[in-house]
Amino acid sequence: LTEVTGPVPIPGDGEALVRLAYLSIDPTNRVWMREEDSYLPAIPIGDVVRAAGLGVVVESRNEAYAVGDLVMGLLGWQDFAIVDSGEATAQVIPPGLAPTDILSIYGSTGLTAWFGVHDVAAVREGDVFVVSGAAGGVGSVAGQLARLAGARVIGIAGSAEKCRWVTEDLGFDACIDYKREDVGARLAELCPDGIDVYFDNVGGAILDAALANLAIGARIALCGAISSYTAAEPPAVRNTFELVSQRARMEGFLLLDYVDRFPEAVMGLLPHVLEGRIRYAVEVVDGLERAPETLNRLFTGDHTGKLLVRVSDVAD
Amino acid sequence: LTEVTGPVPIPGDGEALVRLAYLSIDPTNRVWMREEDSYLPAIPIGDVVRAAGLGVVVESRNEAYAVGDLVMGLLGWQDFAIVDSGEATAQVIPPGLAPTDILSIYGSTGLTAWFGVHDVAAVREGDVFVVSGAAGGVGSVAGQLARLAGARVIGIAGSAEKCRWVTEDLGFDACIDYKREDVGARLAELCPDGIDVYFDNVGGAILDAALANLAIGARIALCGAISSYTAAEPPAVRNTFELVSQRARMEGFLLLDYVDRFPEAVMGLLPHVLEGRIRYAVEVVDGLERAPETLNRLFTGDHTGKLLVRVSDVAD
Repeated sequence: LTEVTGPVPIPGDGEALVRLAYLSIDPTNRVWMREEDSYLPAIPIGDVVRAAGLGVVVESRNEAYAVGDLVMGLLGWQDFAIVDSGEATAQVIPPGLAPTDILSIYGSTGLTAWFGVHDVAAVREGDVFVVSGAAGGVGSVAGQLARLAGARVIGIAGSAEKCRWVTEDLGFDACIDYKREDVGARLAELCPDGIDVYFDNVGGAILDAALANLAIGARIALCGAISSYTAAEPPAVRNTFELVSQRARMEGFLLLDYVDRFPEAVMGLLPHVLEGRIRYAVEVVDGLERAPETLNRLFTGDHTGKLLVRVSDVAD
Repeated sequence: LTEVTGPVPIPGDGEALVRLAYLSIDPTNRVWMREEDSYLPAIPIGDVVRAAGLGVVVESRNEAYAVGDLVMGLLGWQDFAIVDSGEATAQVIPPGLAPTDILSIYGSTGLTAWFGVHDVAAVREGDVFVVSGAAGGVGSVAGQLARLAGARVIGIAGSAEKCRWVTEDLGFDACIDYKREDVGARLAELCPDGIDVYFDNVGGAILDAALANLAIGARIALCGAISSYTAAEPPAVRNTFELVSQRARMEGFLLLDYVDRFPEAVMGLLPHVLEGRIRYAVEVVDGLERAPETLNRLFTGDHTGKLLVRVSDVAD
């Protein structure tokens, strides 16, 4: 990654200039940096790193944006961004919510958890629900939503402290520390009748352990595979035949397919958050120059909850 | 496997004695022979090999069975079987269909293809449909059913002769010879817009190649994983993240969950078969003692269509 300095861009006809306030640090940013295309084209060498962010309109030649509007979009790792009403569109955010909430519980992490739990996995009362990356931004919310839907919730996380947080503070029924425990053996103990829903954020060996412990008719919501994004070769999964034996379903999903339904999810999350039934953690790292090291922390597991980078205090 | 000879069993109260006519040779027989349990308990050492078969009632002390009835059930690798109305139940088959049809197109292979194509994969007009094990009992019928539903159908099979059969005789649009061609490269060529439905009978490397070539919203019906049944360790699948990128679904199924709907599938298949729109191959091997070598042929790929073993001519 190279830092490039230049003049603040000047918006053309139909464009607006946005000053960045916060960047959302998401595992998928790393997917977009791979050499091959994924569900979006790979970021070309030399381009601004693609990332969701929040900013304030400081100049506008587009009537969709007024100076002072808070906007969210793929603003990228930069101080200023040009937005328009086409490919570089941004969403104007109504006032009332904290910027850090907009990029976490009401942003990619909270909404991904919402649609994964309610739509893809269709969690029901009495389900045994297992989530990996349980102390991460998505996993921590997914587990709480599943619990609110009546499931027994078991997390998988990477330290004793993370396990303590999700069980004691977030109300998970149990948590497996995958760095110190045998995940397959612990799942077998904790889920003697099998896993009804597995919400996967990590892929690889932990997905394989979950596959080996499915209940009949299990649903797997594949949200991410963080164990594979930085690997030269994706890790092996060997237990796919369990999907046949258990008549189970494994389904991938992307938040971008649910854009039309974001308001529904935000309205669903709001009362839970305001009345304290859902808790979440946000860590803010100051300074655009720290975006690369902050992204890397997603892959070393050195974080709890959602990571944001504060680019400026324009939205505070 | 050990041959055991003994007296013909005598049916007790509520039981009937069946003389075996044909055995259905299915990949799942091999799954049941593994050390570990699968969706059914592993066959205990010393027990009769569990297998579907067709026979004729020769003595009855159960009013559900009359002497002369043609019955189908898990009769096993033996000359005579005892059936009852409980765990060892059998289904009385109405007259009119050939025994070899009952165990193939109207039996496990035809019905598995039917529910996989219509229910699990929900094949629609215009789908690009790929099936592995294309010249096998299930795959050959699945491809034809998909074609009848309006899909473009591409088979994957293990010889030039099998490929010729499915394209020239069965009407598949194309076929990849996985023993001589690069399956991934050929799928990319034949499905430039991706695979909408993949019907998998083999698992492993071919499943991985299909995963790398999915269209957005693809459905994978996991029917079997013949490449793994005899392996010490199931083969690695690495491209599960493609399910996320393509928002795709992979779902396993077992015919035993559709027992209540067998009549619907038989009625659906009948006109296609009678009017020649679906063709199928059945090879009959004579002699119970040849059941083991016949089962092994499923794993060497040395067969086309459905394999049956004739135990006696009682149903001919």
